[in-house]
Amino acid sequence: MTQTSAHVPDDGHAGPLSAYSLKELQERHSVKWREYPPDVLPMWVAEMDTPLAEPIAAALVEAVVRGDTGYAVAGGLPEAYAGFAERRFGRRPDPAGMRLVPDVMGGIVEVLRLVTGPGDRVVVNTPAYPPYFYWLPRIGREPVHSPLALTPDGYRLDLDALERDFAAGAAAYLLCNPHNPTGLVFGEDELLAVAELAGRYGVRVVADEIHAPLVFDGARHVPFESLDAPAAARSITLASASKAWNLAGLKAALAVPGAEAHGDLAGLSMEISESAGLFGVIASQVAFTAGEPWLADLMAGLTANRALLGDLLAEHLPVVGYQPPQATYLAWLDFRVLGIGDDPAGWFLRRGGVALFPGPRFGPTGCGFARFNFATGADRVTQAVRQMAASLTGRPRASGAGALDAL
Amino acid sequence: MTQTSAHVPDDGHAGPLSAYSLKELQERHSVKWREYPPDVLPMWVAEMDTPLAEPIAAALVEAVVRGDTGYAVAGGLPEAYAGFAERRFGRRPDPAGMRLVPDVMGGIVEVLRLVTGPGDRVVVNTPAYPPYFYWLPRIGREPVHSPLALTPDGYRLDLDALERDFAAGAAAYLLCNPHNPTGLVFGEDELLAVAELAGRYGVRVVADEIHAPLVFDGARHVPFESLDAPAAARSITLASASKAWNLAGLKAALAVPGAEAHGDLAGLSMEISESAGLFGVIASQVAFTAGEPWLADLMAGLTANRALLGDLLAEHLPVVGYQPPQATYLAWLDFRVLGIGDDPAGWFLRRGGVALFPGPRFGPTGCGFARFNFATGADRVTQAVRQMAASLTGRPRASGAGALDAL
Ligand SMILES: Cc1ncc(COP(=O)(O)O)c(C=O)c1O
Ligand SMILES: Cc1ncc(COP(=O)(O)O)c(C=O)c1O
Repeated sequence: MTQTSAHVPDDGHAGPLSAYSLKELQERHSVKWREYPPDVLPMWVAEMDTPLAEPIAAALVEAVVRGDTGYAVAGGLPEAYAGFAERRFGRRPDPAGMRLVPDVMGGIVEVLRLVTGPGDRVVVNTPAYPPYFYWLPRIGREPVHSPLALTPDGYRLDLDALERDFAAGAAAYLLCNPHNPTGLVFGEDELLAVAELAGRYGVRVVADEIHAPLVFDGARHVPFESLDAPAAARSITLASASKAWNLAGLKAALAVPGAEAHGDLAGLSMEISESAGLFGVIASQVAFTAGEPWLADLMAGLTANRALLGDLLAEHLPVVGYQPPQATYLAWLDFRVLGIGDDPAGWFLRRGGVALFPGPRFGPTGCGFARFNFATGADRVTQAVRQMAASLTGRPRASGAGALDAL
Repeated sequence: MTQTSAHVPDDGHAGPLSAYSLKELQERHSVKWREYPPDVLPMWVAEMDTPLAEPIAAALVEAVVRGDTGYAVAGGLPEAYAGFAERRFGRRPDPAGMRLVPDVMGGIVEVLRLVTGPGDRVVVNTPAYPPYFYWLPRIGREPVHSPLALTPDGYRLDLDALERDFAAGAAAYLLCNPHNPTGLVFGEDELLAVAELAGRYGVRVVADEIHAPLVFDGARHVPFESLDAPAAARSITLASASKAWNLAGLKAALAVPGAEAHGDLAGLSMEISESAGLFGVIASQVAFTAGEPWLADLMAGLTANRALLGDLLAEHLPVVGYQPPQATYLAWLDFRVLGIGDDPAGWFLRRGGVALFPGPRFGPTGCGFARFNFATGADRVTQAVRQMAASLTGRPRASGAGALDAL
């Protein structure tokens, strides 16, 4: 396989984020690149504009050559994840109890079906990953909005609010850590406090740790399951290679039981695992065993883009609130002082030709915000911020056809 | 891409079914090849031992090179399927109303959620594809077993039984055509009679036509949706390239509304489509537009294997009932006169080193039966029947290690 090196562009940018030209990206079939017309810069859904890590690409080509496209089975994926977690987070979960699920969202749904009952309340911190609000009601679970506290220093977990919501009668807490969209990484002390509360109120913790491999220098991911607390032993975590290695379309994730949740997870039926994608299993297994060099390159690029975005906003949109995320390639931008309404994403789409993810979809606390995905080339990050800024000055937007040709 | 020709073996066997050696197949990650130890011949789950059609393989490699692994969207798949249906079945369904679903089983579940209510009864013809019995109760729908009639000439649709079951109060009929496991292809007259009954009793028809591309010469697939009847206009069909081109692990299928079911299907949410696999969409689109030459080769091989299986059974297991299927690569074998119990598959697995799909999992009418998957090389079909026969003579089974080395 040579496609990675073949895509190192001439202009000297290194790293996976700038490997493809806009033209190449526009040939993709994925929703990021198909949802909007070609004159819109897509900075919305959590897909990255990277090539695959070389060992993943090689394994997938091998599967194609082998005609290996039948039904999925977990195979070596649990072991691969256990090894990765040990190296990366200093904690080796027991692969024996892990179960294959089609994706993290589907896994959350299945796990909540196992550990809660119909009509039960499930606490989520808002702003929250929007599909939570679709999928929980679909299985008759009621999402309880527990807002993060927004302080002058940015967001933080509001333990008082959490206790209030637990005490009001919650069956489960859907902990999203690292947190989408704020990019928060919760500290060990905060997580221990959560575990204590969960234990006290009999709340089951389901931990969505999909962004855990994407933590920047300066923060540290603590798997909830690794805490020395009864609520951690009873927790179930959803883990996946899909965000960090851009594999969301291949459909595989793992449900990882705490030491005392193996029995619950044993109730997850074979039929669910067979709904997963085989290429997702193959790719994720390689990601967790041989994907760390690529991940290091990616994180270097994301670190640079995270800073670049701060510089660009300071220059072009200085009143926009931006707290650089501790993890993820998602920036949660506060446009409230601009007075462009509850849905700034709508404004920038119509007037700036930039597609952000609309803040209100993350719950009412997202009004006036939008999420900006910076997992793309620095030139496209720059162009997006410029177009957003231009849309506010009243200058008409550069006409579609030629506007993005330089990218 | 040259892997197809690279796998034409030296011994002169042509066609996709014999492209791979046993050793090559044993390197696969899919459930067919991972569920049992390597000394068991796997003839169970509906995966084929074929290479991918060359244009599909090329498109997937291109997607790998492009890093095109983000979230799925239907893209050109509905249009591709409409064209295929027009050429193959003489009927072009309207692509506008089609919706992407992760797989046929998942699509059935979503469609039943739309057109029936909690507690409703859904008629299925037994023996029936086993996952129906898992998934229908999971969404609170009650499967009603409506047995096919077993005549001296083989199975046929029992319209009297169907009317009785419709009259008893059914909300939907899950029509499986071509039928798994019997291989029946229902005729236009039978389907019109079904449509008349469904109209009379107000039963919604959901048609699982996953095996429709796999019809042998001598039979003809009539899409239920194409019938000139009100119940056909209100029907919803599940279509997929996954069986005919062996793409089950890539996760994509289509829900296809009859002319008057577009409104119902519009209720299928975006979130469901985004649970599909992008590689499934890419591969299926190519299958439906450029996969027919490969399908013709496949059908030639399956036609030969269907006859070979008859010859082998006549020679080695003459008392076993075998009605050559009109479609599918699945043979529904009647072992009842052998007196080896309700689950012949268990016998052959333990004593013959051959894994068939257990008949009782298709419902009570499957007792004494097992399903044999002949989508593999002729040598492996031969070996499987020989081992099954040997297991009945009392001769001890050849020991694992070397027994399959010749394949
Ligand atoms: C926090 C969080 N959870 C779940 C998901 C969905 O993951 P999957 O595609 O595996 O369902 C995402 C996707 O971006 C996410 O950010
Ligand atoms: C009749 C029938 N329906 C549905 C399925 C499942 O298809 P999918 O894997 O697309 O859910 C099969 C698989 O063999 C089948 O035979």
